[in-house]
Amino acid sequence: MTTLDIRSDVTVQLVDHNLSDKAVVRAARVSTVGQTHNNPTEDADRDAGLINYLMRERHGSPFEHGSLTLFVEAPIFVFREWQRHRIASYNEESARYRELRPVFYLPAADRNLVQVGKPGAYRLKPGTAEQLAFVDCELLNAYEAAYEAYERMLVAGIAREIARAALPVGIYSSMYVTMNPRGLMNFLSLRTHREDAAFVSNPQREIEMCAEKAEAIFAELMPVTHAAFEANGRVAP
Amino acid sequence: MTTLDIRSDVTVQLVDHNLSDKAVVRAARVSTVGQTHNNPTEDADRDAGLINYLMRERHGSPFEHGSLTLFVEAPIFVFREWQRHRIASYNEESARYRELRPVFYLPAADRNLVQVGKPGAYRLKPGTAEQLAFVDCELLNAYEAAYEAYERMLVAGIAREIARAALPVGIYSSMYVTMNPRGLMNFLSLRTHREDAAFVSNPQREIEMCAEKAEAIFAELMPVTHAAFEANGRVAP
Amino acid sequence: MTTLDIRSDVTVQLVDHNLSDKAVVRAARVSTVGQTHNNPTEDADRDAGLINYLMRERHGSPFEHGSLTLFVEAPIFVFREWQRHRIASYNEESARYRELRPVFYLPAADRNLVQVGKPGAYRLKPGTAEQLAFVDCELLNAYEAAYEAYERMLVAGIAREIARAALPVGIYSSMYVTMNPRGLMNFLSLRTHREDAAFVSNPQREIEMCAEKAEAIFAELMPVTHAAFEANGRVAP
Amino acid sequence: MTTLDIRSDVTVQLVDHNLSDKAVVRAARVSTVGQTHNNPTEDADRDAGLINYLMRERHGSPFEHGSLTLFVEAPIFVFREWQRHRIASYNEESARYRELRPVFYLPAADRNLVQVGKPGAYRLKPGTAEQLAFVDCELLNAYEAAYEAYERMLVAGIAREIARAALPVGIYSSMYVTMNPRGLMNFLSLRTHREDAAFVSNPQREIEMCAEKAEAIFAELMPVTHAAFEANGRVAP
Repeated sequence: MTTLDIRSDVTVQLVDHNLSDKAVVRAARVSTVGQTHNNPTEDADRDAGLINYLMRERHGSPFEHGSLTLFVEAPIFVFREWQRHRIASYNEESARYRELRPVFYLPAADRNLVQVGKPGAYRLKPGTAEQLAFVDCELLNAYEAAYEAYERMLVAGIAREIARAALPVGIYSSMYVTMNPRGLMNFLSLRTHREDAAFVSNPQREIEMCAEKAEAIFAELMPVTHAAFEANGRVAP
Repeated sequence: MTTLDIRSDVTVQLVDHNLSDKAVVRAARVSTVGQTHNNPTEDADRDAGLINYLMRERHGSPFEHGSLTLFVEAPIFVFREWQRHRIASYNEESARYRELRPVFYLPAADRNLVQVGKPGAYRLKPGTAEQLAFVDCELLNAYEAAYEAYERMLVAGIAREIARAALPVGIYSSMYVTMNPRGLMNFLSLRTHREDAAFVSNPQREIEMCAEKAEAIFAELMPVTHAAFEANGRVAP
Repeated sequence: MTTLDIRSDVTVQLVDHNLSDKAVVRAARVSTVGQTHNNPTEDADRDAGLINYLMRERHGSPFEHGSLTLFVEAPIFVFREWQRHRIASYNEESARYRELRPVFYLPAADRNLVQVGKPGAYRLKPGTAEQLAFVDCELLNAYEAAYEAYERMLVAGIAREIARAALPVGIYSSMYVTMNPRGLMNFLSLRTHREDAAFVSNPQREIEMCAEKAEAIFAELMPVTHAAFEANGRVAP
Repeated sequence: MTTLDIRSDVTVQLVDHNLSDKAVVRAARVSTVGQTHNNPTEDADRDAGLINYLMRERHGSPFEHGSLTLFVEAPIFVFREWQRHRIASYNEESARYRELRPVFYLPAADRNLVQVGKPGAYRLKPGTAEQLAFVDCELLNAYEAAYEAYERMLVAGIAREIARAALPVGIYSSMYVTMNPRGLMNFLSLRTHREDAAFVSNPQREIEMCAEKAEAIFAELMPVTHAAFEANGRVAP
């Protein structure tokens, strides 16, 4: 019998990128100055001011020059949400081409479990210890039953693409995703919950966990742009 | 105990559209003639010749003026593939906002079940009667176990967005999808298998079932464009 | 000698569409209700409330189902700006395939002519009568000289694609453009100047003239959506 | 009086990029192998075989991970064509924000000048020495007249955005453009003329000059991918 690998976290790793705050400034300055990329002068304050101006005034195109590739491991229900973002590039593990590994999601102890309010405006609050234990037990049993059925079908010679119909959306998949800074900020804006944002989004916690990791990477690679994003209500330009 | 609703088919219904072969001709003629939409003259053969020329020479933009909205019911594993097509618009049933209904997919008796060849180039061949019965049994049991766990969690007050982690990708979802003719032809090209196409795609059968229904609708609404698509190797322009 | 055709206005005509407020409601309701398009019940207030909620909360995808095709005549410098909007489909008159007609743009008497302030934040104010007469004279002479050179080159057997290098960006071109409601609202948001908008854009007046005509058409076809767009700061969802 | 700067060439410079053949392989392998980016093993022949397979079978998505930023100087009539490619990011010199410099295009001595055949299928053949001299003279005179009118209007205090209406599409502009490898291959496929391509495009020579320079950069950065593009009929996957 297969032992399940249980996770409550997600993986978001930087794979490749050519992002920089300088690329934003360079692209923006072409409109008023012409070619700027050989310009050796530097004025960090002036650059930061320009980036903040672009963000505030929704001049979005200078934030598109460059790309960030991330490697992501998360449950399929997270991928279902992420891949609705169309200004991005994806390659994902295929359940037609390979056997999926038995890695499954359980909520961590601090995950809010109980729904309050109506669709479109609901909030979650903590569950009791009993509820958490109940969820763990139910999900584990369902995962085990599904994965065992999956394996038995594969052993019986059934095609992977059919056998996988039994697998739950709580199983982990993996993908490479590539975005430009503008697309990434749009993703962060919609997939993080911040009470102080200009628009308060209510993403599911699990995709927000991905977004938070992606945002930490972004903030390190483009600190000035990220600060301007924060300072302007976390609205993608 | 909930009774499962079992399906082996998919739903693809025409909801709304403003497609026409005339719109292609009108858009194409602006490049050589200027405004054409008030032109009362008609020459069906000449129009068909122009559409065939555009398709053959990969002049794709005239095929973008208009949109087709379909209502689709299919298993989640089909939606996962469909929604990777980015030149399209989607609104799907939300497992965060509503309780999913117990509708599940089982392969029909004539569905090929057994995989031959290696990833990237494999084919499927029919299974034995035993294999079909085995798949039905395994999938049904897995579906039942998953859906019962889902319902017990909902009854226990667990949020829908968490409980749904147990649900398999063989459960049905529903969506509205809107495409323009060019995006639709790209979808058809990649998601149908035709030995005589310029590029032979190998889609999973279940999304091909959707594509075939979409193609029938398309062929009725834009017969000349569809004929040109067929005549030119089923390559989207 | 060719007589120039002088215009100070733009043409934006409705050619084809399948837009409706109902399509927004239908697409949005699938997330909470499932299939709704056969639903005969109607509640206009509730629908308007939903549309306003979607606009306010930036749920943009329900505004993508449907398309609007416009026929546009405007100077090339307007088309240069318009065609930077990438979520749209274009077919334009070709200066490689046909001889462009001698239709040129002159500012109307009430067009602001004089620039105040610096790049990125400048405003325009009215010119004097002398300045207006001066502009008319200079542009007319330049247009005439250019078009005559163009015609002489064509007569001498020079290819249209080369001869057109002499033509100014003040010459009119024509195109069909197709957008969905979301793309159109983004266009309106960026290409109209409204002091009361959440983000105050500063478009060039000539593309704003196009946008105003497009907005009037949009407001007639989707009155509830348009009202929600206005009520929510004219920010595209 | 301003002296014109006359050019018959275009500038396409590599500004920034993170392209590599390895990125294609890495993205493609996730579908069959899962995470691959830490894999130290290398097999150049196997990688080349995979890239060729992806190109031939139109698996386009692995060619989207990475971006290339080019700085381009070319006449406005070239930018008008280039910017119709929507899977790309642009920032261009603004004739609203700055005074355009007097740099203009004249065809080189070996540029074909005379059109043979009808729209949609015409070819160009060399002109006579007289025709070339005639084109040079006509264009130069038109450019001079236009630029002098432009300058007089600016001196008279007229806004740049109005005065520029006099400027011809043969004037040079500059931009930064960013594309991913798949978008770039689509651009190359449509904007170069090769008799041996699967689809023979007939681009205007001036944008083809840009495409050839972009292709040389691409071939150096991604030699295996470029070879596969060539070997498979120069069709973008």
